[in-house]
Amino acid sequence: MRAVALGGGHGLHATLSALRRLTADVTAVVTVADDGGSSGRLRRELGLLPPGDLRQALAALAAAEDGGTLWAEVFQHRFGGNGALTGHAVGNLLLAGLFEVLDDPVAGLDEAARLLGITGRVLPMSAEPLEIEAEVTGLENGEVSRIRGQVAVASTPGLVRRVSLHNPGRPQRLPVACEDAVRAVLEADAVFLGPGSWFTSVLPHLLVPDLHDALVRTNATKVVILNLVPQPGETAGFSPERHLHVLFDHAPRLKVDAVIADRDSVPTPARLRRAARALGGRAHLASIATRDGVGRHDPDALAGCVREALGLIESVEEGH
Amino acid sequence: MRAVALGGGHGLHATLSALRRLTADVTAVVTVADDGGSSGRLRRELGLLPPGDLRQALAALAAAEDGGTLWAEVFQHRFGGNGALTGHAVGNLLLAGLFEVLDDPVAGLDEAARLLGITGRVLPMSAEPLEIEAEVTGLENGEVSRIRGQVAVASTPGLVRRVSLHNPGRPQRLPVACEDAVRAVLEADAVFLGPGSWFTSVLPHLLVPDLHDALVRTNATKVVILNLVPQPGETAGFSPERHLHVLFDHAPRLKVDAVIADRDSVPTPARLRRAARALGGRAHLASIATRDGVGRHDPDALAGCVREALGLIESVEEGH
Repeated sequence: MRAVALGGGHGLHATLSALRRLTADVTAVVTVADDGGSSGRLRRELGLLPPGDLRQALAALAAAEDGGTLWAEVFQHRFGGNGALTGHAVGNLLLAGLFEVLDDPVAGLDEAARLLGITGRVLPMSAEPLEIEAEVTGLENGEVSRIRGQVAVASTPGLVRRVSLHNPGRPQRLPVACEDAVRAVLEADAVFLGPGSWFTSVLPHLLVPDLHDALVRTNATKVVILNLVPQPGETAGFSPERHLHVLFDHAPRLKVDAVIADRDSVPTPARLRRAARALGGRAHLASIATRDGVGRHDPDALAGCVREALGLIESVEEGH
Repeated sequence: MRAVALGGGHGLHATLSALRRLTADVTAVVTVADDGGSSGRLRRELGLLPPGDLRQALAALAAAEDGGTLWAEVFQHRFGGNGALTGHAVGNLLLAGLFEVLDDPVAGLDEAARLLGITGRVLPMSAEPLEIEAEVTGLENGEVSRIRGQVAVASTPGLVRRVSLHNPGRPQRLPVACEDAVRAVLEADAVFLGPGSWFTSVLPHLLVPDLHDALVRTNATKVVILNLVPQPGETAGFSPERHLHVLFDHAPRLKVDAVIADRDSVPTPARLRRAARALGGRAHLASIATRDGVGRHDPDALAGCVREALGLIESVEEGH
């Protein structure tokens, strides 16, 4: 099975950790709008793609959290102290070096994947660093405010209504998709969107025109994986079905085949089923959170639910 | 042939570039007293071995300047700009990450060597960052001043009389040699000292007691390679034979078998021959500088002279 997962950050890490249990042919397509932390510093200082989410995706495919290779561990290692390097992950610095030397982030990511012994691929959604802009209400009375940058949008106390994506270097031009990412989506058997910061890691993929069109056109089974808990800030108070409504708002032509959600994170299953049907698909509810209550997906359980959603095994829902 | 080259910086790079033309079994033993540039910043910020000279030695064995592998190029790549990363070589950051993750610089260097496809080894002379202290005259009238740190010693306008080596973290203890470096010297067929900054890259090896004793005891052929030009600052105005006198001052028990010098860099060959004989060896003079006049050794010419000094070919000196 050729699987493509689109997202960023911890959410994409969860999907990739589940998918590598199902197939060796996983392509991650990663947001490039991060402007915080180590990634943000590297982006501002060197003008490169923010490497952090790309590194996380590489680490997920390298199974870094299960021991992985030495290089996966080095990749994820962050410098401590209180100096200029504090907080930088070694993998971010290495990706930055590869991007500069090869002058091609896709080639750089393929080299990093080889170093980590990964069979799949990690691709940026665009080869250019992009910026998120959000329309937000609730900050000034009745007014719509515009907020720029992933960190600002993700942490706004206001209500995010809509996001758009821009190339800050060429604000008049629409974002350009990474060609290999477009091809991967078109050639996939299954495509996965989410979980993750909805406005800043998941929806941005739908705002790159060629990537959006590929998602609409592909014959792949399309699966949306919902978050376990609303994100403080950008989706505070959002119900599971509201996540789907927002998705539809940003990509009205997109149909999905399956919506995966954690049973305990869905207050009103009937509403979610209705919202899933409105998008053309079916809701799959299962217990997919880790039992430690930290709000993370359990990779094995998520893999089981993905298998069910793809029709690879009979529904487990009825049996519970 | 098992060859061991001791030194640091550009000088060691020259020796290694020559030796890898003669044998695949080259071990570099590298000074760890650097406190300048990218290395100094990393050393101060993270408390690690300064990686720069180690990285240069890895790059020399990886033939980075002849194209080498992509990783050799990435290793040598320096970040530009004006930010926190400016001037840092990617290889320095990668070595720092390996040192922290593995908590063992020798293991980290072996991993880096594997990444670069190197057959030989690069070892630190000590697993602890060390500090050079110099006795210098000519700064205050008639007084002996003490100067600390490689950068300060290398650039002093005074006359360096003697250097010593300390572990700034444990000033009362003698420097501890890297065990693998000691073993490499004892098991070598040929050992090379120099060229390079005499007081700050070459002599420090003789000031690590176990490394000094191994150099005295080894049955390897011992070869000293002299500089093409006196180093501004630390050896300004030093004649070739004065370099040997200073070597003897710091290690009276050390005998050498051969002294290699560039023909055009030796004003009075008879004096150099006498100084070499005083150390127990023979002087080998040949044209070993590059023809572009930048003051670098030509790797092929140096390799030829090394071959002669080791008795692997008949003397070329008579024929000239």
